[in-house]
Amino acid sequence: MAMRQIAAIIGGGVIGGGWAARFLLAGWDVMVYDTDPEAERKIAEVMVNARASAPFLVEGAMPQEGVLRFADSLDEAVAEASWIQESVPERPDIKRGVYAAIQKACRADALIGSSTSGFTPTQLQEGAKDASQIVVTHPYNPVYLLPLVELVASPATSAEQIARAKEILSAISMKPVHIKGEIDAHVGDRLLEAVWREALWLINDDIATTDVIDDIMTHSFGLRWAQMGLFETYRVAGGEAGMRHFITQFGPALAWPWTKLMDVPELSDELIDKIASQSDAQSGAHSIRELEAIRDKNLVAFLRSLKAHNWAAGAFLNEVDAARANEGAPALSDGEMLALHEGRVMPDWIDYNGHMTEFRYGQVFADASDAVIKAGGFDAGYLARGLSFYTVETHIRYLGEMSLGEGFKTHSQILSFDGKKLHLCHEMINEAGAVVATGEHMLLHVDSAKGASAPSEAPVAEMLGALAKAHEGLAMPDYCGRAVGQKTS
Amino acid sequence: MAMRQIAAIIGGGVIGGGWAARFLLAGWDVMVYDTDPEAERKIAEVMVNARASAPFLVEGAMPQEGVLRFADSLDEAVAEASWIQESVPERPDIKRGVYAAIQKACRADALIGSSTSGFTPTQLQEGAKDASQIVVTHPYNPVYLLPLVELVASPATSAEQIARAKEILSAISMKPVHIKGEIDAHVGDRLLEAVWREALWLINDDIATTDVIDDIMTHSFGLRWAQMGLFETYRVAGGEAGMRHFITQFGPALAWPWTKLMDVPELSDELIDKIASQSDAQSGAHSIRELEAIRDKNLVAFLRSLKAHNWAAGAFLNEVDAARANEGAPALSDGEMLALHEGRVMPDWIDYNGHMTEFRYGQVFADASDAVIKAGGFDAGYLARGLSFYTVETHIRYLGEMSLGEGFKTHSQILSFDGKKLHLCHEMINEAGAVVATGEHMLLHVDSAKGASAPSEAPVAEMLGALAKAHEGLAMPDYCGRAVGQKTS
Repeated sequence: MAMRQIAAIIGGGVIGGGWAARFLLAGWDVMVYDTDPEAERKIAEVMVNARASAPFLVEGAMPQEGVLRFADSLDEAVAEASWIQESVPERPDIKRGVYAAIQKACRADALIGSSTSGFTPTQLQEGAKDASQIVVTHPYNPVYLLPLVELVASPATSAEQIARAKEILSAISMKPVHIKGEIDAHVGDRLLEAVWREALWLINDDIATTDVIDDIMTHSFGLRWAQMGLFETYRVAGGEAGMRHFITQFGPALAWPWTKLMDVPELSDELIDKIASQSDAQSGAHSIRELEAIRDKNLVAFLRSLKAHNWAAGAFLNEVDAARANEGAPALSDGEMLALHEGRVMPDWIDYNGHMTEFRYGQVFADASDAVIKAGGFDAGYLARGLSFYTVETHIRYLGEMSLGEGFKTHSQILSFDGKKLHLCHEMINEAGAVVATGEHMLLHVDSAKGASAPSEAPVAEMLGALAKAHEGLAMPDYCGRAVGQKTS
Repeated sequence: MAMRQIAAIIGGGVIGGGWAARFLLAGWDVMVYDTDPEAERKIAEVMVNARASAPFLVEGAMPQEGVLRFADSLDEAVAEASWIQESVPERPDIKRGVYAAIQKACRADALIGSSTSGFTPTQLQEGAKDASQIVVTHPYNPVYLLPLVELVASPATSAEQIARAKEILSAISMKPVHIKGEIDAHVGDRLLEAVWREALWLINDDIATTDVIDDIMTHSFGLRWAQMGLFETYRVAGGEAGMRHFITQFGPALAWPWTKLMDVPELSDELIDKIASQSDAQSGAHSIRELEAIRDKNLVAFLRSLKAHNWAAGAFLNEVDAARANEGAPALSDGEMLALHEGRVMPDWIDYNGHMTEFRYGQVFADASDAVIKAGGFDAGYLARGLSFYTVETHIRYLGEMSLGEGFKTHSQILSFDGKKLHLCHEMINEAGAVVATGEHMLLHVDSAKGASAPSEAPVAEMLGALAKAHEGLAMPDYCGRAVGQKTS
């Protein structure tokens, strides 16, 4: 989208702040309206968390961050917005009042998403000037990292409006799941409510404390559900006999006594005290800010693993990357050298000295070598023919420190290529343009079936050969051809 | 434990097979009894999965795998076992019959753990010869990866027996959580049952299909629960106001209409058909074996991230490592060179050629360099004084391929140390004793506050100096002092 897009955030608490971060990092301008005088400080803190985590889920360059403004009035906030996200307290009268005020000032083609975890679109639309604008878009905290949003519409909203809602949510890298039926609490919160009821009952009756319940979740089914949902998990547990067998076997459990134990415990002051003090004992050693940072670090690590395995939420993030890939691909050449690879320093690249650890420089240069041979015609089809390049030797000089999140690019020069041996060097360049490391590498073209070196074939022989030829006139950098510890001339 | 330990596995399905793998990989001998003629094949398949995943959660050497035997009779299986795990179908009459048979033949000091996900110890013990032997030890699939086991005992079981049960479960790297109250379905399955009820209701009423429910779980709260349970998650969501505020705010939701929607849908043939065919559409492209492999790969990646962050299940696995660390530490010297580091090729070390990728060799050598400076007196206290070593130059030759899971060790030689510059080389050696890579490295001692090189101080100056002195008589290997592509003499 070429034009600046504006989102209005009505209610800037934990959820509203998360939405603001999500839009800003996707390049949208954001107008926040919240009567809480602390809203500006709170959203600034959410932005610190979001900037420290969300970029690590994206390969390549991030869009330029949008501009955040705080509006003095609701009218001002919504006037130019194409998306208005409502995250005010969970009371239908309050929400309906907000919609009435929004609809006095907003664009006719704007969409109003509600973060409600409970109410249906039909309930929210009661008495609205234009019911069609109001949809449920229920996200999960932290909104800037978790991609899911449940999209629920009433019959008042048109297919075109629903399509536009999906398009906008996709543009901010979210995964809209369109729930066709209107039910209280939609789908995700139905499941969460059920767990919450059971957990309250367990605490109330002193069967377990908060830390025991949390330990049980994080050391067992929580790990399963980060990558396979209930049904796929049970399908696998059913073994060879399959899903049908599993359910019929599980079936009798539905009639067992504990399935009748579904009364809701009274939320007495005593129960609240019990939960609060158990939670203090369990988690009080960490501040909320610390816990947020730990949570985000873990989420980033999980999502990056899932990206590497192209599975579940990771497969979704890879689709997001692929859709973006053409927007900001590096230039083929930058001056005389090849500029084929760029990235940023990831969280698990940091060592105990607080900087990018040495072997990750090796990873950057390995990726740069990969980029060179790909520019030279190497691809999955060539690999499938049993032909590849193996690196046989590497010499790296570490010249400068790199910090978490810092961006870099690589410049590459082909020193020689005889069809079999590829001698090249790379420079890793930080955002300020300084060379922070140099690499010199010898790659060998191999026939992996024979387990031996072999001449390259078409199209690599020709294409890589042409790239090498274009570099023949370049002088060999003085850091090449040296041994460890030997001075540059 | 010096003596061979024997576990008897009664019922060798998915769960029993998982227990067998858990005990075998912890070095226990295992006797399996199952009347299913396919049991041997099925457990062999579980072992393939377990061997391909569980070792990646352990730093250093694994214990030697125990011996797996299939008994012709239940008597033979349990006779010498100190632990007997029952995983037969979930019917109390069947389970009680199995206990009666076990107690005719087992040791008086043996413990009998039941994998039941529903029945209480008191229900299981009805009519038993020795009620005290029977406890609930409810695990989670896959048992060889997920550490949690819910331990529930009735008053018949003594404190000593409970302590022994915990000791044995800890010895096989599980995390026993002792649930003090006896309730149907214990704690974890109470929560799972609640989610299952809601999910059936959602499918039954066509609100969502299996794939939608699974997507919602894996793209939102599933990712949260892999690292923080319900209570810690909500504590963080409550923001600065804390847990008490969060609950009182959440409180009204307990009285909302959907909390009354708790009837259990009838498990009709129609509902079973619906679930089975939706699940086929969702997951049918992958075989169960493929799904197991994907699941295990994801679980290993999550658990390794959590280990790196020392959080939740990862903190537990680090405790397991620490308890084991003294058992198999590498020798300080191996011949003339230092032998300070060993490991195995981890799943995320493999490249598209199917072998250990080049930059991970750099990681092995960086770890080996770390081990050398640590042997030379460098530790967290020295680092806290602002003193450290930075690697300034690296030269690696890649001589041999390494495959997933292959073990290695490193040999290190100090070429020179003048108090400031540390010149060293390493060899990476595979299980067959072959050198698969060599590294030559220059490290510089730095004062990180000044951001400049500085002489090392006590104790590193003396201790590392002494190690260097001991290597003065060793010849410099011919792969040192060379440039990339330069032939060795």
